[in-house]
Amino acid sequence: MTTIAPSINPPIRTLMGPGPSDTHPSVLTALSRPTLGHLDPAYLQIMDELQGMLRQVFQTKNAMTFAVSGTGSAGMEATVVNLVEPGDDVVIGVNGVFGTRMCDVAARAGANVIRMERPWGEVFTVDDVKEALGKCKPKFVGVVLAETSTGAWQPMDDIAQLVHDSGAMLLVDSVTGLGGLPVETDRWQVDAIYSGTQKCLSCPPGLAPVSFSERAVQTILSRKTKVQSWYLDVGMLASYWGSDRVYHHTAPINMSYALHEALRLILTEGLEACHARHLLHHRALKAGLGALGISYAAQEGHQLPMLNAVRIPEGIDDARVRRDLLQRFNLEIGAGLGPFKGQVWRIGLMGYGSRAANVLVFLGALEQLLAEQGFKFSAGSSIAAANQVYADARA
Amino acid sequence: MTTIAPSINPPIRTLMGPGPSDTHPSVLTALSRPTLGHLDPAYLQIMDELQGMLRQVFQTKNAMTFAVSGTGSAGMEATVVNLVEPGDDVVIGVNGVFGTRMCDVAARAGANVIRMERPWGEVFTVDDVKEALGKCKPKFVGVVLAETSTGAWQPMDDIAQLVHDSGAMLLVDSVTGLGGLPVETDRWQVDAIYSGTQKCLSCPPGLAPVSFSERAVQTILSRKTKVQSWYLDVGMLASYWGSDRVYHHTAPINMSYALHEALRLILTEGLEACHARHLLHHRALKAGLGALGISYAAQEGHQLPMLNAVRIPEGIDDARVRRDLLQRFNLEIGAGLGPFKGQVWRIGLMGYGSRAANVLVFLGALEQLLAEQGFKFSAGSSIAAANQVYADARA
Repeated sequence: MTTIAPSINPPIRTLMGPGPSDTHPSVLTALSRPTLGHLDPAYLQIMDELQGMLRQVFQTKNAMTFAVSGTGSAGMEATVVNLVEPGDDVVIGVNGVFGTRMCDVAARAGANVIRMERPWGEVFTVDDVKEALGKCKPKFVGVVLAETSTGAWQPMDDIAQLVHDSGAMLLVDSVTGLGGLPVETDRWQVDAIYSGTQKCLSCPPGLAPVSFSERAVQTILSRKTKVQSWYLDVGMLASYWGSDRVYHHTAPINMSYALHEALRLILTEGLEACHARHLLHHRALKAGLGALGISYAAQEGHQLPMLNAVRIPEGIDDARVRRDLLQRFNLEIGAGLGPFKGQVWRIGLMGYGSRAANVLVFLGALEQLLAEQGFKFSAGSSIAAANQVYADARA
Repeated sequence: MTTIAPSINPPIRTLMGPGPSDTHPSVLTALSRPTLGHLDPAYLQIMDELQGMLRQVFQTKNAMTFAVSGTGSAGMEATVVNLVEPGDDVVIGVNGVFGTRMCDVAARAGANVIRMERPWGEVFTVDDVKEALGKCKPKFVGVVLAETSTGAWQPMDDIAQLVHDSGAMLLVDSVTGLGGLPVETDRWQVDAIYSGTQKCLSCPPGLAPVSFSERAVQTILSRKTKVQSWYLDVGMLASYWGSDRVYHHTAPINMSYALHEALRLILTEGLEACHARHLLHHRALKAGLGALGISYAAQEGHQLPMLNAVRIPEGIDDARVRRDLLQRFNLEIGAGLGPFKGQVWRIGLMGYGSRAANVLVFLGALEQLLAEQGFKFSAGSSIAAANQVYADARA
């Protein structure tokens, strides 16, 4: 018997979780333009432009800069499995979900994984990296620039230098970072980096921007074993994204339109202005939450602007707040993962979603819901504190 | 220096190549609805509905029926790498590009691949399968139902029975078939099957519908080794697509909207009516081409309705015809691959694109371009021949 669902009619949410973030309206429009063939000259031009703009957002001249046909996790897998051959030593920084995931991906590719660990919410120091590099000669060191599970912002300059001095390659997870904070691929001499479209690029999930240094490409091209994944084999993908345009798999055409438009928006605003905007709204949110006595889960001085992981106040019902935000305000925030489950909320201010309206509606709604749960307000209005940040910024 | 590309402005093509096919307008509309969070109850309902409709189109009751977050080739990789453990024997039918690709994917997963071969354009017989199964005890036999590179339509009933009698599992590539011809997953007792959204589902590329039998799921859950791909690990994906809803990776939300609408369109038309429509327009096209003396590349009696691979007439400039079709008529057809390069055109009548208007505009344009290249018309008007098929069908 045939059962046909009604047409979709998604409610209009404000997405302030860990991603996906709100897609920009002009990106939705681009997404719905008519599909082109994947070898159509008009589409090849869109790919070229997309690559050119992606290089600017990644701050790189890397030729091998393109979009993997999958979500951010496919980007992680693409960078890892192309670089790893069975038996290779790799060092991976683990201070949250995504470092843990990278270990799993690398081990499945046959790597001998050396975990460099820090408690959730902390970042790695130069000494941590020195210690790890003292134990082995890894093929690469993998670190997460913006740990979405903890809100920690990993400083890169010093550890990037150390990694290269040791002769290892540097692999960086910038899924949540790209578009919202400086991602200096060339200055840090990153060898492989990946991101996702659904965070600070204001685009739906579905593509994973990646970039490989010349050294990484040479390493891949001189592998002794085939890359375990046909779908993610960079040597083959290079022939399609390069000048040869050899058919590999059918690119997700409409998603490329969306990413093209998303990159246009960022470059039109200007990379620095875009990063500054993310910082401003983070500061306003943090001031507002501070007025409620709500603190951050990540180490002070290393808190991400686009992903605010904050401690749930004592006695407040986590699930009820999130459910009420969604049902009554159409506003989504994220729950904590792993050890942060029930302890932490994750509030995203990503891309198009990083704006004063979102900060204010969230703080206002939160005050209302906390009051309903008998929360003791002590320090004052969160809105006033946030607005003070905006007033200072205008002054 | 910042270089910003202009907004995309894709030309409006008629996509009559091997895919992507034209996306249905209502699918484009669904694609551009606002993004939801991947754990939003409203999105989870869309996933449930999508799975329910996908089961109907796959003609299966398999619980493990869902959409892989990648294109059709990711679907191939997902089915193969979940079933293969290193050292497993597998038999794969090779009579075109996609069987060849499956061998590569399986070998990368550590399988010992036994190739069952046929010339391009032919299909496998019961004797071919018997012979292959006489040589080994494979874990699975992989066959391509609709070979997009040759236009060959593999009959399944008898070989499916043989494969099961031998104790092997059956893996089927239905990338180009699904939605355009009967895909009887349960009746054939298929253990793993995959498709793509960009062929007869009238949806952009980006998702790979898959389905696994209970036997395949049990095989996967009792593996001795981890699945080599974290991203495609069915055991983990089952927790997200199943009732647990455990976060794995962020689903491509907007692409799910599109697939939901695409499946709605097919079920609203009715599966049988939809398959009959594909057959009718194929017959009209074939009659038209026959009037021009143009023959098919695939074996008579085994020609796909949605992918018409035809011999390029002697003395006609392949590239010039395809370029003129694109530039003057905004109409895309596909070139031949591998041994068919320069020998064959691939004309798609897929999903929304399988309609009389497309048949007639293609035949009319082709007549014009052939005339310009000095083609000797002998048998008569291709349009009249096609219209006769339509007249007979109405009678």
